[in-house]
Amino acid sequence: MTDPLAPGGVIGILGGGQLGRMLAMAAARLGLRAHVFDPARDCPAAQVAAGHECASYDDFAALERFADGVDVITYEFENIPVDALDILEARKPIRPNRMALAVSQDRLEEKRFVAGLGLQVAPFAAVDDADTLDLALADIPPPGILKTRRMGYDGKGQFRLDGAGDAEAALAEMAGAPAILEGFVAFEREISVIAARGLSGEVAAFDPGENIHEGGILRRTTVPAPISPARRSDAVLLAARVVNALDYVGVMGVELFDTRAGLIVNEIAPRVHNSGHWTQQGCAVDQFEQHIRAVAGWPLGDGARFADVEMENLIGADVERVPQIARQRDAAIHLYGKAEARPGRKMGHVNHVLRG
Amino acid sequence: MTDPLAPGGVIGILGGGQLGRMLAMAAARLGLRAHVFDPARDCPAAQVAAGHECASYDDFAALERFADGVDVITYEFENIPVDALDILEARKPIRPNRMALAVSQDRLEEKRFVAGLGLQVAPFAAVDDADTLDLALADIPPPGILKTRRMGYDGKGQFRLDGAGDAEAALAEMAGAPAILEGFVAFEREISVIAARGLSGEVAAFDPGENIHEGGILRRTTVPAPISPARRSDAVLLAARVVNALDYVGVMGVELFDTRAGLIVNEIAPRVHNSGHWTQQGCAVDQFEQHIRAVAGWPLGDGARFADVEMENLIGADVERVPQIARQRDAAIHLYGKAEARPGRKMGHVNHVLRG
Repeated sequence: MTDPLAPGGVIGILGGGQLGRMLAMAAARLGLRAHVFDPARDCPAAQVAAGHECASYDDFAALERFADGVDVITYEFENIPVDALDILEARKPIRPNRMALAVSQDRLEEKRFVAGLGLQVAPFAAVDDADTLDLALADIPPPGILKTRRMGYDGKGQFRLDGAGDAEAALAEMAGAPAILEGFVAFEREISVIAARGLSGEVAAFDPGENIHEGGILRRTTVPAPISPARRSDAVLLAARVVNALDYVGVMGVELFDTRAGLIVNEIAPRVHNSGHWTQQGCAVDQFEQHIRAVAGWPLGDGARFADVEMENLIGADVERVPQIARQRDAAIHLYGKAEARPGRKMGHVNHVLRG
Repeated sequence: MTDPLAPGGVIGILGGGQLGRMLAMAAARLGLRAHVFDPARDCPAAQVAAGHECASYDDFAALERFADGVDVITYEFENIPVDALDILEARKPIRPNRMALAVSQDRLEEKRFVAGLGLQVAPFAAVDDADTLDLALADIPPPGILKTRRMGYDGKGQFRLDGAGDAEAALAEMAGAPAILEGFVAFEREISVIAARGLSGEVAAFDPGENIHEGGILRRTTVPAPISPARRSDAVLLAARVVNALDYVGVMGVELFDTRAGLIVNEIAPRVHNSGHWTQQGCAVDQFEQHIRAVAGWPLGDGARFADVEMENLIGADVERVPQIARQRDAAIHLYGKAEARPGRKMGHVNHVLRG
C-alpha cells in the first residue's frame, strides 16, 4: 500500500488501551475504520472501534484473520512479540516499521542507536550480572538508575541507585533480566517533542512541551515549554534526525532533558505519546490524527498550534475529581472507558486551554 | 435518573447518522458508552459506538431491549415515531423531552409555539387543501414556500411559490399531506445559535454563526457571525427563552433570520445541529459533548470560543477534494464513514481554524 488509504479503508491497531482508543477515534474522523487487536473483551479502544479481534498475541490464526481484514497495521505499544509481528508483516505493512520497534524495545539498543546519530544520551552501560554492574558503577558513579533492557514503563522495572550499597537490591529488582545502568543527568527540565514522518518522507513536529513526572508517571505537560527559540529548533531538528534515520512512518514521542550542555535524549517511543495529548485542544490536526495520516499515507498536518494548553493526567482516584473539573471553564475532559480506578492507572486526562 | 451519569454509564442514541456518530464519540470522551439504535447495519454511528441495536422503529422487542441496556435516551433526529417513543419512555428518560419533539415534528405547531413566546416568526398559515391554500395566499401573498407540516429536511417536501399560478403544483408536491404556507422574509443573513440547557436548568449558548445555504442544504457556517454585540445578545436570549419554555434538556439548534426588524425565528431543531459543527475546533466543549453533558446530567461547558472557525460541508462529490483539503493548513477534517457519495448527501465537513 503506497497510495493514500481512501475513506472506508481499515487501520489495524495492535493494543486496545487509551492510545488505541484515541487513534481509533482519529481514524473515524478521517472516514477510516479502526480494527483493534487486544485480548481484553471490553478494552478502551474496542468501545469506539468498528472491529475488535479479541485474542492473545500467540493466537496465530487470530493474527492472520486480523491482518486479512485490514489495509495497514499500526500499534499503540512497543512491546509486541516478535512472532506476532512476523505473522502480521507477511500479510500487511506495519507502520512504524520493525526497525523502530527493535530499537525501542531494547533500552540498550536505543541508547546505542541514538548515540550513533551523534546525539547526546545519558551515560550508560550494559548490566547482566553483579560483575558487570560493578564495572558499570565504576564508570558511571551513582546516583544512577538500573533498568531492564526490555519491557517496563511508567517507572516499573527500574531501581534507583544512590550508592554502591544499592547494587544488590537493584540487581534483585531486575530478576535476572538483562539491564542497563544509566547515569543521572542534571537537567533543568524535561521536555518532549512529538514528531511525525509521512510515507513520502515529509517531517512535521508539534511544539515541545514541558513534562512533570510524579512517581515515575507523567503528571502534566505544558505547552509551550519555557525554552528559547534556539532550543526549540534544536529539539525539533533532533527529533527529525531520529525519524529520518529510522525511515520512520508515524508519530514518535521523543523525551529530552534540557540541560546546560544542550539537549540529551532520554527516551524515544515509536507511537503516540502521553506528552502529546495536549494537541487534541491546541491543533487542527492532533497527534492521533497525525499518526493515522502518516500510516494511511495521507499528507501530514503541519503541527501548528493555535492555543496554549496544559495537559493533566487523571491517575487512579484523580478520576473522582471529574465532576469538579467538568465545571471548569476551558477544561476539555478525555476519559478512557476503564471500569476500575486502580492506583497508578491512567484513567483519563484533561486539557486546560490556557490562551486562545 | 437525576444524578450525573457516572463514567461507564450508557447513553442510548436514536439514529445512527453523522450526528449520532459525533455524539457517540463525545460520549466516549467523557468515559460514557454509546448504544445506537438504527436499522442500518453499517451506519456511521455504529462504527464508533460500544453497542448497536440494528432494528427498525416498529420492532417493539428491539426497542425494549435497547431501552433496558441504557441509562438515558437521546436522539439525533426529530421524526421518531410516536409509538416507539411511548415504548422507550416507559422504561428510560428521553432527553430532550417529548414536548420538544412534538413541537419540532410539526412545522405548524412549532410556529405557533414560537409565536406564543412573543418571538417573531415568518407569516404562516395552515394549508390542507386547495381552498385553504387560496385563503392563505390571500393573506400571505407570494413569494412564499409551501412545506409539509411533518418530515422533510434539507429542502425536501418543500415547494416555492412565486405567484398564485404555482398553487396547483405546490399542492401536488405535498401529496395530500397537511402543509404550512410560509411567507418569505427579507433578511440580511441567516444566523444560528446553538443553545444548551442542563438538567438543573442552567443555560449556555455558543456564539452565533452565519449560515450560507445552497440548494436548500447548509453549505457553510462562519463564526463569529458579522453582527452587532446587541444582536448577538438578542439571539442568545431568544434561544434561552425557547429552551426554558420547553423545560428542555440538551442542545438545540435555533435558526434565525437577521432582519432590519430584528431577529425572526426560522426553525428550531431539538438536537445537535449542522451549523454547530464549528464548535469541534473552536471550543473546549463542543456541541456534541455539550449535548451529552446535558442529557447525562453533567454540568454544561460555558460555550466560550477560543478560535474563529469556518465550517464547510462536504456534500456528495465534494468528498473527492479531501486529499487536497488534507494539505491545507488549519483544516480539520471530519468524515462520516458513509460508503457512497450520492449527490446531496452529507459526507463530512471541514473546520477551517481562521484565527487563534
